[in-house]
Amino acid sequence: MLDKADLKTGIDKSDYHARMGVLEKRLESLQLKVKELGIPVIITFDGWSSAGKGTLISKALEPLDPRNFSVHSMEKVTEDQFMRPFLWRYAVKTPPGGRFAIFDKSWNTAAVIGDGAIRGHVEKDMDGICRDILAFEKQLADSGVLILKFFLHISRDEQLKRFKELEKNEDTRWRVTEKDWAQNKDYNKYYNHFDNMLKKTGAGSVKWTVIPSDDKKSAAIRFFEVLVERLTETVSMREKEKNNLATKNTENTQRKAFDDVPDILSGVSLEKDLSEAQYDSLLKQYQKHISNLGFKLYRKRRSVVIVYEGWDAAGKGGNIKRLTEELDPRGYDVRPVAAPSKEELSHHYLWRFWRDMPKDGHIAIFDRSWYGRVMVERVEGLCSEDEWRRAFNEINEMEMHLRRHGVIICKFWMHIDKDEQLRRFQARMEDPMKQYKIGGEDWRNREKWDAYLLAVNEMLAKTSTHCAPWTVVEANSKKFARIKVLERVIKTLEKEL
Amino acid sequence: MLDKADLKTGIDKSDYHARMGVLEKRLESLQLKVKELGIPVIITFDGWSSAGKGTLISKALEPLDPRNFSVHSMEKVTEDQFMRPFLWRYAVKTPPGGRFAIFDKSWNTAAVIGDGAIRGHVEKDMDGICRDILAFEKQLADSGVLILKFFLHISRDEQLKRFKELEKNEDTRWRVTEKDWAQNKDYNKYYNHFDNMLKKTGAGSVKWTVIPSDDKKSAAIRFFEVLVERLTETVSMREKEKNNLATKNTENTQRKAFDDVPDILSGVSLEKDLSEAQYDSLLKQYQKHISNLGFKLYRKRRSVVIVYEGWDAAGKGGNIKRLTEELDPRGYDVRPVAAPSKEELSHHYLWRFWRDMPKDGHIAIFDRSWYGRVMVERVEGLCSEDEWRRAFNEINEMEMHLRRHGVIICKFWMHIDKDEQLRRFQARMEDPMKQYKIGGEDWRNREKWDAYLLAVNEMLAKTSTHCAPWTVVEANSKKFARIKVLERVIKTLEKEL
Repeated sequence: MLDKADLKTGIDKSDYHARMGVLEKRLESLQLKVKELGIPVIITFDGWSSAGKGTLISKALEPLDPRNFSVHSMEKVTEDQFMRPFLWRYAVKTPPGGRFAIFDKSWNTAAVIGDGAIRGHVEKDMDGICRDILAFEKQLADSGVLILKFFLHISRDEQLKRFKELEKNEDTRWRVTEKDWAQNKDYNKYYNHFDNMLKKTGAGSVKWTVIPSDDKKSAAIRFFEVLVERLTETVSMREKEKNNLATKNTENTQRKAFDDVPDILSGVSLEKDLSEAQYDSLLKQYQKHISNLGFKLYRKRRSVVIVYEGWDAAGKGGNIKRLTEELDPRGYDVRPVAAPSKEELSHHYLWRFWRDMPKDGHIAIFDRSWYGRVMVERVEGLCSEDEWRRAFNEINEMEMHLRRHGVIICKFWMHIDKDEQLRRFQARMEDPMKQYKIGGEDWRNREKWDAYLLAVNEMLAKTSTHCAPWTVVEANSKKFARIKVLERVIKTLEKEL
Repeated sequence: MLDKADLKTGIDKSDYHARMGVLEKRLESLQLKVKELGIPVIITFDGWSSAGKGTLISKALEPLDPRNFSVHSMEKVTEDQFMRPFLWRYAVKTPPGGRFAIFDKSWNTAAVIGDGAIRGHVEKDMDGICRDILAFEKQLADSGVLILKFFLHISRDEQLKRFKELEKNEDTRWRVTEKDWAQNKDYNKYYNHFDNMLKKTGAGSVKWTVIPSDDKKSAAIRFFEVLVERLTETVSMREKEKNNLATKNTENTQRKAFDDVPDILSGVSLEKDLSEAQYDSLLKQYQKHISNLGFKLYRKRRSVVIVYEGWDAAGKGGNIKRLTEELDPRGYDVRPVAAPSKEELSHHYLWRFWRDMPKDGHIAIFDRSWYGRVMVERVEGLCSEDEWRRAFNEINEMEMHLRRHGVIICKFWMHIDKDEQLRRFQARMEDPMKQYKIGGEDWRNREKWDAYLLAVNEMLAKTSTHCAPWTVVEANSKKFARIKVLERVIKTLEKEL
């Protein structure tokens, strides 16, 4: 790709100012549309050292309202970032609707050039990482994020000239590092790396724009042209969609017939139980065991994600309690997941879960999770059919990325039958200590049992992957369910540690 | 204080189980009350190495629902924490109403024992840090947070015994570090340090509880007793307050006569202006200058907080734009402050601003700020009179703490008169590009001009401190206002760097 970039272009000064003036005005008014339509925009900058990223970022921001953008410096990887799957550092910084997020280094460079920024417990697997990147970009693009990836290209001579210029001045000398000099010295090696990266990561839904940057003025013009063009395109597309949506909105209320979904849950026997004595002895033994595994986890710097989903009153709370009781409290966190806040709704639906992903050595327990997308959001019509259908794959992709970093994933569906649920609801109503646990929503959800059943069956079938399988927990007996979860977590950890 | 702790206490095993059973039951039901009443609870643990913090924390959590608490491990200071004022790492983790936050090391130990965890650009000043701590605790307590500080005390012999026990086993050997051994070796020195710390930081609104911990069982009992007692007290107090509030609520609508507030703003001359030519040349010169200061800031690892407050349409946006235009975009962040979200409302009102405090080397620009407490929240009755009156001092205390870390603070009140505001509102209505900037709220605020004037005058008088003075910016002329802000920021940075 780089060989096609013409580094010899130049531009006349007065021509530059005239064209730049027009482009800046356009960008200034486009940002209002972006805000109004709630479009999240990501702009990333990669390229050679001293290719002029800083200058270009500053130029791009000039027409923008400083309250509408965030600039994220990704050059230095913090400890917090290093201890999580490498897309995490980007995922948590994706912008809400109407805002620009600007990255001075993209996930592409970070991953594919490789600079010690990625640590995998699983053996480093470049093709896999590229797949993760393409999936990440596609997910964002599908959800309506506009992503613009720029690569600033300069020649070896120009780079050398710029380094020497910087070194002349005492105030700028510190900006040329040894790593920079190495890049100039081994220019050809890096050229191949970059070219390879551009090819590998430009094949997906987001293309690269290579900006020939030997001449700073024409680089700026080119950058602005692409930016304005893409924003104009997207704005006009979204305006059309908005209008179509307004007329189409009523069409889709009738749900289409569902796919042929295997009825996994009907085969589950809920008779299983344990005697008090069995339970007590196993509980003690397993809790002791899991506590030791927790320490081992910490020492080996492996992280764990445990997902609890299940019917209302299936006993998630008590189950989590038994799982964590003997764990070192500094090693785990329980995240109760409620309806998303306004801020969370203005982001990609996975954003709020990314924020809670555990760092190496820690356990995160999700009491309800991202699977809400394909259950409550689907059944209640809180997202479109397209969105929840897409989600099965998106979730698998995210979990695959966690897995690639070495995260251990356990997912539990706490299963009870309808009669048992009724018994528990009634018991809650009668117990003053438990009354707070039951509200109108629980009864309303119960009425939609069959719709949920269908959704859960489809979820289990489509998201039970090799790297993150579901375990259906027979939970009519709370004792049995607690022991089964403990057993499964222990087994999984033992296999992995 | 430590000399009063009786380390010889013991307890009979069956007695222990009986008493513990009762206490655990009490705690289990108290947590429901805590949730219902929305009380935020902080429990901190300090003490000797191997005094049994981990065990006690685990014990305390047993009766609690894991979804109601977070445990924060504060032993290791992360880079992110190290680069901010030292109370930051605690402030951002204070719990919302109804939740427990448990810290395995408190701000007291971190500050007063000192372990390299605090970095001050200003010379280390223990008395000052103690004042900050007492102010921090008082602010939280005043806002309704229940804080419980425990210190676990063991004898030198007992500590030695425990270390040896841990070393025997291969799985636990790693837990005894060189630092731990040093503590045992220099037990007397540490004893004095701890004792001193307990005296210095126990004098404020939150007292210490020293738990004699040579005997683990009696330590656990003592801890639970205090915890249950304090929770019971607080719950019953809050229930009473709630009932009183329900009857008293109507009384306070009539605002009391205000203090004698100096009329600072009436003395401000709004005639000041600049010619186009003066403006252009100064703007260019200052922007260049401030850009260099930005780099210097980064190299010297100093951070800056810039606060913009002012009348609607006073020109904050355009002013911020001119201030940041030539700054390296990776070095600053602009935080537009809107009405607090539900989550933010369930925390202390300063919590959301703490989260945005810049790390060393960076600039944070707040477009509206914590001063909302004494302006919009006061005028609109969104907080009680007690609360906004208290806020003047609380804000000064917070800024003093930032200052002690070396944060440079600039605060601007953008001042225009009522006629100018009207002209700008009308211009906005007429310009299709600016119509989005004006809404019903702006007109409603305008009607309350005099109430705001009083509030602003009081704010300027009470929060213009030596370490964080206000600058009133004459903003009828946008040009003049922009140059004045640039000039003031430059002057302040030059003095500090």
